[in-house]
Amino acid sequence: MTAPAQTSATVPQPAYSPLFAAEIARAKSGVEASIRAGVHVPVPKDPGGGVTHEQHKRNYRTIFEGGQLYRLTGDVRYRDHVRDLLLAYADLYPKLGPHPAAANQVPGRLFWQSLNDSVFLVNAAQGYGAIRDTLPAADRTRIDDNMIRPMARFLSDGSPEVINRIHNHATWAAAGVGLSGYLLGDRDLVDKALLGLDKSGKAGFLRQLDLLFSPDGYYAEGPYYQRYALQPFVVFAAAIAAHDPDRKIFEHRDGIVLKAVRTAIEVTHDGNFLPLNDAMPDKSLRTEELYHAVAIAYAATKDPAFLSIADWQGRSVLTPAGQVMASDLAAGKAKPWPFASRLLGDGPDGEQGALVLLRTKPDPRGPLLVAKNSVQGMGHGHFDRLGWLYYDETGAVVTDYGAARFLNVEAKRGGRYLPENDSWASATVAHNTLVVDEQSHFAGNWKTGEKYPTQQLATALDGPTRYSIAEIGTAYKDVRFRRALLLLDVPGLANPLTLDLLRASSGTKHRYDLPLHFSGHIIDNDIAFTRNLAERPVLGKANGYQHLWVDGEGTKAGKARLTWMQGSRFYSYHMLPPAGARFIVAESGANDPEFNLRREPALIQRLDGAADATFVSLLEPHGEYDASSEAVVASSARVTALEHRREGAADLILVTLVDGRRFAVAVADDVAAGIKHSVTVDGRALAWTGPVGRFDLAKTGAKK
Amino acid sequence: MTAPAQTSATVPQPAYSPLFAAEIARAKSGVEASIRAGVHVPVPKDPGGGVTHEQHKRNYRTIFEGGQLYRLTGDVRYRDHVRDLLLAYADLYPKLGPHPAAANQVPGRLFWQSLNDSVFLVNAAQGYGAIRDTLPAADRTRIDDNMIRPMARFLSDGSPEVINRIHNHATWAAAGVGLSGYLLGDRDLVDKALLGLDKSGKAGFLRQLDLLFSPDGYYAEGPYYQRYALQPFVVFAAAIAAHDPDRKIFEHRDGIVLKAVRTAIEVTHDGNFLPLNDAMPDKSLRTEELYHAVAIAYAATKDPAFLSIADWQGRSVLTPAGQVMASDLAAGKAKPWPFASRLLGDGPDGEQGALVLLRTKPDPRGPLLVAKNSVQGMGHGHFDRLGWLYYDETGAVVTDYGAARFLNVEAKRGGRYLPENDSWASATVAHNTLVVDEQSHFAGNWKTGEKYPTQQLATALDGPTRYSIAEIGTAYKDVRFRRALLLLDVPGLANPLTLDLLRASSGTKHRYDLPLHFSGHIIDNDIAFTRNLAERPVLGKANGYQHLWVDGEGTKAGKARLTWMQGSRFYSYHMLPPAGARFIVAESGANDPEFNLRREPALIQRLDGAADATFVSLLEPHGEYDASSEAVVASSARVTALEHRREGAADLILVTLVDGRRFAVAVADDVAAGIKHSVTVDGRALAWTGPVGRFDLAKTGAKK
Ligand SMILES: [Zn+2]
Ligand SMILES: [Zn+2]
Repeated sequence: MTAPAQTSATVPQPAYSPLFAAEIARAKSGVEASIRAGVHVPVPKDPGGGVTHEQHKRNYRTIFEGGQLYRLTGDVRYRDHVRDLLLAYADLYPKLGPHPAAANQVPGRLFWQSLNDSVFLVNAAQGYGAIRDTLPAADRTRIDDNMIRPMARFLSDGSPEVINRIHNHATWAAAGVGLSGYLLGDRDLVDKALLGLDKSGKAGFLRQLDLLFSPDGYYAEGPYYQRYALQPFVVFAAAIAAHDPDRKIFEHRDGIVLKAVRTAIEVTHDGNFLPLNDAMPDKSLRTEELYHAVAIAYAATKDPAFLSIADWQGRSVLTPAGQVMASDLAAGKAKPWPFASRLLGDGPDGEQGALVLLRTKPDPRGPLLVAKNSVQGMGHGHFDRLGWLYYDETGAVVTDYGAARFLNVEAKRGGRYLPENDSWASATVAHNTLVVDEQSHFAGNWKTGEKYPTQQLATALDGPTRYSIAEIGTAYKDVRFRRALLLLDVPGLANPLTLDLLRASSGTKHRYDLPLHFSGHIIDNDIAFTRNLAERPVLGKANGYQHLWVDGEGTKAGKARLTWMQGSRFYSYHMLPPAGARFIVAESGANDPEFNLRREPALIQRLDGAADATFVSLLEPHGEYDASSEAVVASSARVTALEHRREGAADLILVTLVDGRRFAVAVADDVAAGIKHSVTVDGRALAWTGPVGRFDLAKTGAKK
Repeated sequence: MTAPAQTSATVPQPAYSPLFAAEIARAKSGVEASIRAGVHVPVPKDPGGGVTHEQHKRNYRTIFEGGQLYRLTGDVRYRDHVRDLLLAYADLYPKLGPHPAAANQVPGRLFWQSLNDSVFLVNAAQGYGAIRDTLPAADRTRIDDNMIRPMARFLSDGSPEVINRIHNHATWAAAGVGLSGYLLGDRDLVDKALLGLDKSGKAGFLRQLDLLFSPDGYYAEGPYYQRYALQPFVVFAAAIAAHDPDRKIFEHRDGIVLKAVRTAIEVTHDGNFLPLNDAMPDKSLRTEELYHAVAIAYAATKDPAFLSIADWQGRSVLTPAGQVMASDLAAGKAKPWPFASRLLGDGPDGEQGALVLLRTKPDPRGPLLVAKNSVQGMGHGHFDRLGWLYYDETGAVVTDYGAARFLNVEAKRGGRYLPENDSWASATVAHNTLVVDEQSHFAGNWKTGEKYPTQQLATALDGPTRYSIAEIGTAYKDVRFRRALLLLDVPGLANPLTLDLLRASSGTKHRYDLPLHFSGHIIDNDIAFTRNLAERPVLGKANGYQHLWVDGEGTKAGKARLTWMQGSRFYSYHMLPPAGARFIVAESGANDPEFNLRREPALIQRLDGAADATFVSLLEPHGEYDASSEAVVASSARVTALEHRREGAADLILVTLVDGRRFAVAVADDVAAGIKHSVTVDGRALAWTGPVGRFDLAKTGAKK
């Protein structure tokens, strides 16, 4: 840090904004280390996380960053190192066959799955593009003909089973192939990338844009893969805009590329992607893909809300778009991102169901009720129709396990998806939705699930009574179920209540299980549990049940309650299941020979031998524990009673608070918007229009 | 927030530093709310966390803060509200008997334990002191005679079983009584507070200063209670310094009050108190007691390192000392706290054992090896002689359960210590130390433990081979055990290694268990475990064993390894137990009818039927997982071999790294400093002086 580095810089260095200067410094540190280490282009051998895997990942990063650094600084050492790496790949690449560590995925040449090869090419093409014009023709020819073009050919003509799919792997391939085409002036590659191998438009990037995102910019596989998919979409779109401006790619399909970026930001809580479907739980907006997406989206829109996301990320990218964004952020142009409730239609037509996000505040850490009423989400989809999640200032409260995987950790099956991803993480019982006869939805067959949408029946995004009502009749052979999830602001309560009305109906009798997976430590409950204190059995044999330890089983007449604590807050879950239901406290982690599972609590409401069933549940966040002052307030619930009545063609739920206040929520069977409904409660007529009504009732005597 | 509040301020408002201005704003917000709510002084009824409990806590805070606000602003509304509260207490207090919710502790009048009454008086006396001179004589008389003096009498003459003890409850009582005495000019109260009820000096504040802290300022009950005890010590000391300057209280016993503050800061990691003995795990330096302690210590020393602690706390106190501290912090005078290794002698003479803190960096979040070789720690002490903990940048790695308690959470037995605090949290098997025949140390009797010190035999706080060697022969009837814990900096390894050599010897045969409690997710291991996959038994019947679920049991010849992951880092625990030992993977949480326990993993090395046993273990932190880039490096261990040889009167441990490098650590039986030792390894003579030698050996063939 004391001797100034030798430099042959020829470009005068402008004054960079802090974020961009930090990017340059970070890239320099990486690229300089690579220069010191020399050119290491090993013969591919290891799976994810292994030595050759990591080296090739480092190399594409060096090629990308070294190229940008050369563009920015004119320092030929960067160009020469990038060139040397590319030449080494030009020597190696033609000799390679399928990767030796290939497993379930389509094998690449450099990596165990071709997906990583695509990512390599997207980065390498950009890095090479920044130095190509300055290279001698001989070097250019070697790199063009022995590396870039063969890689692009391998990922297009050589891998029709990848690039012709409608899938994020195909988007990465298309981006790699298309960027290579623009770079080499190879129209054939560009057209195959845009329109599919037969150039018919039935596959390729444009078709992917039409099919992979819903009209609201929601990506079928879910937030984790939406993030992952975004980078090739935005990077390739930016290249198309530059090279084929007449395509007006950013206006394509009503601006779908930018909608996808915005939606990626919306499907987060406190910056973390909602872990729907196969998803690593620790993934946030602080990720390479989103640095690029935010920079490109800001360049295309100049919407200052993107700057606040960049500010939270604390990162930019080395491209001109990143430079402008960092500079505008430094100039104080950022505005907060306007987080709000969203109804995100799923499927290419937006009619295959929906992901509903209900928020009460624009705060990224504020309350968030998620109703997962989307379609399957392809092979990474979980069997969780009509499931829900809840987040607030303490983090994830009602949870989804996400994926069973330790990404890139070699000891965990090479970092791939673990067996428990199928046997537990994607099973219905691992989710907060109805399980019938201990089977997963669609008998656990995702291809079946892919055929059947969820019906999003009604939604209210604003006001004190936000809600989502959805239904599905195809998840089980002869069971139809409908769920209304309502997020209720109640005067005098610091946190909103989540009211859950789930009705199942069938022509035959079934076992109905309604699990709740939550995060926190159990404080108390009013259920007469028989506990398995000294020997702990498992709940079942298959479909995820084999992974649940049973801590206890019990019953309670009328409303039952379980209270837990997370961080500084208490949560009471009030339940009014059908008569005869039992409660099971369980924990994940049984039948886990390799210690692959996290151990997390669950509560299951179980009803046996019923054709129809109505479960009414209410989640009440309350109180506060202050670790600093050790002060505790409101550790007991404010909700003291929960009643359910079937009145004509509506469900009526009555909630009583500790101060005696009462209110009613009515949910009509007829979900049409303009229909008028009326019921009578305690001699008073309650009338409302549309699916949901809400009414304050006369106070009862307050309990102490 | 729009209409300016009416004020009758008469004191011109100076420009406060940001921290102090925030204190004033915070206090105003609390006191204004109290003014709006009116005077609520309910008849005491509820235990910790209940309504009347919390109201009386709020009231003493209002009295303290309202008094300071009046001093700072001259606004008589503050004075009048404090006066009205005090007068309400003057009406109520004389009517009160023992608190109705009293349990195991000595009952108070206002609170369920008299400790809280003491805290009330410490605060109330300070708040009253700020307004007393401005009150009419009639008010003053009512408050003096019906509240302050009766409370002080109750906590002194009325509670000899409290104030005459050598215990933190007695310090709070002494501080309340003494501050009241200074306030009322009542020398009798002051002298009883300082010297005990008989004024002999056999009890009272000065005696507590002599007996409760070791010469190094370590508090017998441990860090959590050290924090708690500090506030009355420093507040009363500051009052003594002001009223009885001739006592030179801050110089008493070589400056013990300030040493105690410094030591309280040292016994933290990343600002969190080490959870030794009964301790809440979420307790940090961000706590009322430390705000006061840091302000008073800074006022007494002007040591700028205290300012960096205040900066981390982000808080000050409303007193003149807090004002000066905040102002100096704003002036940029702070210096980092020089965290370093420490040998903290325990007991009034410093000879009852020690708490050893080994650190490799001044970073508060850096590696920290804790050797708990202290004495019992009175009734809150755990049975964990020669136990250890390890912390680093990912937090607590080798852990202590702390206390089984949900402080102030009424549903958890009124917020008191839970039954599992005795049956699990304080048991030896819940700690990282030797358990003989499934019994806790001293048969689980803390009064016995209190009689027997631990022998701290040798310590090295600096250099690449830091260590602690300690021994105890009294924890079990006929077993003596000695433990060397070494923190080794190894060139080329990013993180230090912890080497653990534990030798037990006895005249008879025993079951020896050596548990390791760790934090993280198991990644892999090389032990042939028989797993309890579908039914989980408990490990034993009593002494904490009944709370352990058994996940599996297995064996391994030679070195065994368990690797786990926490945050972004991997940890490999290498074990070389005596021949015939087995390994047990377990988890806390069995036999827990009220869901009171956290569920945390443990690994136990078990040897049956042996008189002597040597356990060699090595903790190796390695690698990195980057959630943002999904890059993983070094997920497998660098240590490939661990050998142990008994050579003459020394133990020799040989460590081989993946690159073939080898080193040896020799630990001599004779722990005297100047003794020369020598052993021969691979034909080479290794000579060292003192208890520990360390040697680089010839490289072996590197493994790939
Ligand atoms: Zn899921
Ligand atoms: Zn402990």
